[in-house]
Amino acid sequence: MVILPESEHPIKAYGYAARDPSGSLSPLTFSRRATGEKDVRFKVLYCGICHSDLHFVKNEWGVTKYPVTPGHEIVGVVTEVGSKVEKFKIGDKVGVGCMVGSCRSCRSCDSNYEQDCSKQIGTYGFPNFDGTQTYGGYSDHMVSDEHFVLRWPENLPLDSGAPLLCAGITTYSPLRYFGLDKPGIKVGVVGLGGLGHVAVKMAKAFGAEVTVFSTTPAKEQEAIEGLKADHFINSKDVQKMQAARGTLDGIIDTVSGNHPIAPLLNALTPRGKLVLVGAPEKPLEIAAFSLIMGRKTVAGSNIGGIKETQEMLDFAAEHGITADIEVIPIDYVNTAMERLLKSDVRYRFVIDVANSIKAE
Amino acid sequence: MVILPESEHPIKAYGYAARDPSGSLSPLTFSRRATGEKDVRFKVLYCGICHSDLHFVKNEWGVTKYPVTPGHEIVGVVTEVGSKVEKFKIGDKVGVGCMVGSCRSCRSCDSNYEQDCSKQIGTYGFPNFDGTQTYGGYSDHMVSDEHFVLRWPENLPLDSGAPLLCAGITTYSPLRYFGLDKPGIKVGVVGLGGLGHVAVKMAKAFGAEVTVFSTTPAKEQEAIEGLKADHFINSKDVQKMQAARGTLDGIIDTVSGNHPIAPLLNALTPRGKLVLVGAPEKPLEIAAFSLIMGRKTVAGSNIGGIKETQEMLDFAAEHGITADIEVIPIDYVNTAMERLLKSDVRYRFVIDVANSIKAE
Repeated sequence: MVILPESEHPIKAYGYAARDPSGSLSPLTFSRRATGEKDVRFKVLYCGICHSDLHFVKNEWGVTKYPVTPGHEIVGVVTEVGSKVEKFKIGDKVGVGCMVGSCRSCRSCDSNYEQDCSKQIGTYGFPNFDGTQTYGGYSDHMVSDEHFVLRWPENLPLDSGAPLLCAGITTYSPLRYFGLDKPGIKVGVVGLGGLGHVAVKMAKAFGAEVTVFSTTPAKEQEAIEGLKADHFINSKDVQKMQAARGTLDGIIDTVSGNHPIAPLLNALTPRGKLVLVGAPEKPLEIAAFSLIMGRKTVAGSNIGGIKETQEMLDFAAEHGITADIEVIPIDYVNTAMERLLKSDVRYRFVIDVANSIKAE
Repeated sequence: MVILPESEHPIKAYGYAARDPSGSLSPLTFSRRATGEKDVRFKVLYCGICHSDLHFVKNEWGVTKYPVTPGHEIVGVVTEVGSKVEKFKIGDKVGVGCMVGSCRSCRSCDSNYEQDCSKQIGTYGFPNFDGTQTYGGYSDHMVSDEHFVLRWPENLPLDSGAPLLCAGITTYSPLRYFGLDKPGIKVGVVGLGGLGHVAVKMAKAFGAEVTVFSTTPAKEQEAIEGLKADHFINSKDVQKMQAARGTLDGIIDTVSGNHPIAPLLNALTPRGKLVLVGAPEKPLEIAAFSLIMGRKTVAGSNIGGIKETQEMLDFAAEHGITADIEVIPIDYVNTAMERLLKSDVRYRFVIDVANSIKAE
């Protein structure tokens, strides 16, 4: 017996969903579970559009089950709390990022790395503990275990803060984990998009000297004047790349298109670290010698744990860090996806969900 | 004007040298500098044969200048010290590893990472500060700034301890640097040769649970019984490799032949680290996702600094760690090189220099 998304759970919900690999989104009536003892239910106010939403609705990673309601940069206001909820009350502003569950008992969970838990439940398109699918923030409301709900700092804007729940933690966490969070440290940021522009702001807030690498010369002005980066290098300029040799303690590489890694490794100081947060389709080609000489590191990084995400939001609020955004109504989402594909956004779309979503 | 090796310096020296890319070694009369204020002069007793000596004499890295006298696992006894030498006196047992000089003032040198100094002077085949070439330990005596001379621990054998000056520090240092030096930690060692067998001993001495990966099933017994490794996996056994998924905190990969990296990354726990100390010729192919999911690291590592090399020797003496060796006379060196090429040695040749070298 097939149970329809609208009858799985007792609470009606509305959202936008893709039904097939065209990725085209349209209104969907579905349902959400009743508020459990430790659950927080909240009305969605804003939801950012992450590039992975685009991959997911088109099933580009081969794991999508339809219908899928994307969205994992979600800000809202609490409407109901379970009897054992300790951290939140009705009316609180809250956020939910890329996870709504994990096992809570493995070594990763115990060390506040829930993002590495093998039983992690993604905010959308994942099987929940009860076997039903999770639905994301392109929807009227959410319900989540309070452990995965973030306290929204009072002075952090709800709309331009929303993308921090993915783009913010994805860049903040590796800067911290790999020791690139110290004043005076020299940090490179490759790619100036949704992730890259937040990486620059985070690194600058840590006091780093920041070099932006981009293949788009026009981004120099945005990098230097707009984002206060210290240096800009057109990564197609072989001479400038060569001149950058041995200058950077670490690099956050946000580019998901295929691109050469050797010149970036070359730009690292001894013991420097190249951290990939974008995932090019083709395997990287890395000469062992380029790592061995100078004990260099290539690592990957994926979001961050819940404790650190809260720390990141508080840090962003303290330092006035938000994403540069374009706010859109939810019925603009398909056009936004098309523009995102062409990198035609500075730098993140955020859906004004509360003011534009309508029950069918 | 060409100055011959034997006339460059005031002190006569004898050694074995390759004259051309055949790599064939034969006796050479050359010279060494007078003992400077901070220099230590010592008679060579033993010198290990490292696989890189073989690459070097055949000019396989394209940087060899002939004649070249290899050898960077050198143990000897002090015969003369300069007026400002503080750490050594005549009669002391000493060692010299892969370096005899560095700038002593850059960030790497200041942090005891002389091996990363861009002005590092290799023990052989490198231009010295005065422009002359350095000559290694396949020779009757050595002279080196005391900073690069190691104090030989009293109870560390001179012959089987010699290879630690390269193979020992090359495996000890990454275990320490990457936090793989804690009791109970799970460490993989890929390849059971000169480096690998020492890596197993070092990791066991730190209290790690050690898994050896090798493509040679016959090495299982050596690994488990001889070296006290806890597990052995034939890395060609796809099922066993799959079963090892997510089990290791770190892996020291000593293999310099081309081999697949993906199954090794797969064997790492979240936040696990794969450290290359062998350098395959072909670039590694690494899928970005395999690093991003679980925040994994691929790094390279090359020897260690002088302070840490001393610490390693003391650690080895304390824990009874030596290399498994076959002692040879110096006129056997060409045969030894041929056997080394076929991995026909368990696990390191050490030349009994003092008892077999003769002035022409």
